[in-house]
Amino acid sequence: MARGNLLVGQSGGCTAAINASLAGVVEAAWESRDVAAVYGMRHGIEGVLRGELVDLGAEPSEIWSRIRRTPSAALGSARYKLEEEDLQRVLDTLIRLDVRYFIYIGGNDSADTAHRVSEAAKHRGYELHAIAVPKTIDNDLPLTDHCPGYGSIARFVSQVTQEVGLDTEAMCRVDPVKIVEVMGRDAGWVAASSSLGRRRPSDAPHLIYMPERPFSRETFLQDIQRCHQVHGYAVAVVTETVRDSSGESIARADPVFSRDSFGHRYLTGAASYLADLVARELGLRARFDKPGTIQRMSMAMASDVDLQEAYEVGAHAVRAAVAGEGDKMVSIERVADEPYSSQPGLVPLTAVANHQRLLPDEFINDTGNHVTPEFSRYALPLIGGTAVSYPRLQGVPVPL
Amino acid sequence: MARGNLLVGQSGGCTAAINASLAGVVEAAWESRDVAAVYGMRHGIEGVLRGELVDLGAEPSEIWSRIRRTPSAALGSARYKLEEEDLQRVLDTLIRLDVRYFIYIGGNDSADTAHRVSEAAKHRGYELHAIAVPKTIDNDLPLTDHCPGYGSIARFVSQVTQEVGLDTEAMCRVDPVKIVEVMGRDAGWVAASSSLGRRRPSDAPHLIYMPERPFSRETFLQDIQRCHQVHGYAVAVVTETVRDSSGESIARADPVFSRDSFGHRYLTGAASYLADLVARELGLRARFDKPGTIQRMSMAMASDVDLQEAYEVGAHAVRAAVAGEGDKMVSIERVADEPYSSQPGLVPLTAVANHQRLLPDEFINDTGNHVTPEFSRYALPLIGGTAVSYPRLQGVPVPL
Repeated sequence: MARGNLLVGQSGGCTAAINASLAGVVEAAWESRDVAAVYGMRHGIEGVLRGELVDLGAEPSEIWSRIRRTPSAALGSARYKLEEEDLQRVLDTLIRLDVRYFIYIGGNDSADTAHRVSEAAKHRGYELHAIAVPKTIDNDLPLTDHCPGYGSIARFVSQVTQEVGLDTEAMCRVDPVKIVEVMGRDAGWVAASSSLGRRRPSDAPHLIYMPERPFSRETFLQDIQRCHQVHGYAVAVVTETVRDSSGESIARADPVFSRDSFGHRYLTGAASYLADLVARELGLRARFDKPGTIQRMSMAMASDVDLQEAYEVGAHAVRAAVAGEGDKMVSIERVADEPYSSQPGLVPLTAVANHQRLLPDEFINDTGNHVTPEFSRYALPLIGGTAVSYPRLQGVPVPL
Repeated sequence: MARGNLLVGQSGGCTAAINASLAGVVEAAWESRDVAAVYGMRHGIEGVLRGELVDLGAEPSEIWSRIRRTPSAALGSARYKLEEEDLQRVLDTLIRLDVRYFIYIGGNDSADTAHRVSEAAKHRGYELHAIAVPKTIDNDLPLTDHCPGYGSIARFVSQVTQEVGLDTEAMCRVDPVKIVEVMGRDAGWVAASSSLGRRRPSDAPHLIYMPERPFSRETFLQDIQRCHQVHGYAVAVVTETVRDSSGESIARADPVFSRDSFGHRYLTGAASYLADLVARELGLRARFDKPGTIQRMSMAMASDVDLQEAYEVGAHAVRAAVAGEGDKMVSIERVADEPYSSQPGLVPLTAVANHQRLLPDEFINDTGNHVTPEFSRYALPLIGGTAVSYPRLQGVPVPL
């Protein structure tokens, strides 16, 4: 086909790797003779609707090697659900700017946006090659082995869980229980990764609660009490969205803690709630950590495998688009486990958009409060092949 | 003096550097002809009272190069206030084990413990050389330029504040306000360090609230609104212990949020409270991050300057003790700013114990919501001389 322009955007929650994908898109576009100008959307598809587009060819070329290792979304991100009337305005802009390659980096909702733009172009008879680039720390996109962004958050969570575990063990006579709250919309992939640095049964995390299993307060309290008795301390990692068997988020469902003194409901995080619950019911001092956005942004603990793959899926999207592909998402296909290798593939957007991949049963233990060795085999290569762990003093007693 | 045994312990909140100090103590003790055996207390002075001491000479010597870069307290830590009757039992144990060198790594309370043990030995006519090794992320010990542990938490907080800032900026149309809660007992040293990676006025943190200044809800809300108007987003860093002008912690003092539906008081963290307040009063979506113990444990973001100094103050404590010193704390004296260099010194424990060093006025800006350039000159060398910052795309608009 004839030369055309390329438009790229970023959408959804930011990650440590989403700019690596952007750099992959931009540098592959410059290398392609089929791409004329490279434009970026400010704040995703909203940038198209508001006319906030930037000329990425006007950026100094040396900046991309630095952007590649910069967390967050350099173009700005958004969470915007396209209305039907928006679609025609988007198309008008693409046609006016002679955009033939539409690359959208994001998760589930972004795949849906890319698909709808692709469909709208088809209806208008306008040749547009729309390719989605996967990105989500939730790791919940189907038809791809994993999602860029996940390896980095998994590396962060696996390392800090070991560190928080050492801290709780050392302070076990002061604050013996620690709850760590991690991200995850409906899937427990991030919480599961907290296990990757564990070497001994006494290592943290002793317990992992994932949204794939209904959360029971009673079982949780028994779990904590047992771990405290066995190890002298207990570290539990919990996905922020765990729900009880009625499907209600655990903090909101508690009659004591879910309303303020005027009877208004308020939002308490899962970990803050559970730390209160442990203190109230078991009489054990409990603290919580909620790294929040820090966990998905940390460049010091990013996975090199993740950053490299994120770059490659971005570049592959451009190569696929100029080769004539459209209405597809780039996937990551695992080629081998040891040594780990992967290659990019393509899957239909309709099979991705609005579908979710939860943790499969074989990755969750029978009691629903930890992971299996199969999970480690899956996840360890994604964080770089090894997880940080630390030595312990043996502590040979002195005879008194 | 004659050869004697050495006993070392760790106390108070753990840090990324406290094991570097322990390694410094142990390796210097092995090098000294005046030290026979090296014993460690499990969980600080409690280990002496409970007879839980370990023989550190029985540890494989190669482990110390790894312990040196392991966060938390390898011997276990504690917060235990010695009673008078405890002191005699401690002395009995020291005498029975022929301990002549007593090295205690910790903060304010630990300096007090070391001093009291030293005094008790003097009253019994028992020659004991008690030296405290400073350790506190609070950085609030007097008579030392800074405290081991601070440089590492400052490096963590400065980096994640940049990362969280980029995230909030990218997501400014979804969640434009972010509150980050950091540690600090009565001093704002940690919160202040969040500024170290800031390059432009639009960079995070826009606001820093430290316990040295009374917190006003009204001023805070005006500050957030102004930053949001100017930058399109606002990032505030707040010390967990900020208090209002009545001296009450801000979350507990709010009549709406401080009681549950049965009228019981509950503890809400400062950041979680402030995020609620922003949403309630300004109608802006706000989120919070509370890295908790993660901030003081992160080895990936530890400061090499800090780890090196922590090792050296540990080693210096042993050299001072065997040279006949006692009832002292090792201090860090700044020799030069550029290039940065420091040397260990000694200060009397009586001048340290139970005294606190708050942020001086010249490090806090006139409006009490940020730091001054003088603070950066002080703190930057401690995190290694530079703070992580990230590039931004310039964003040259595309004419439509």
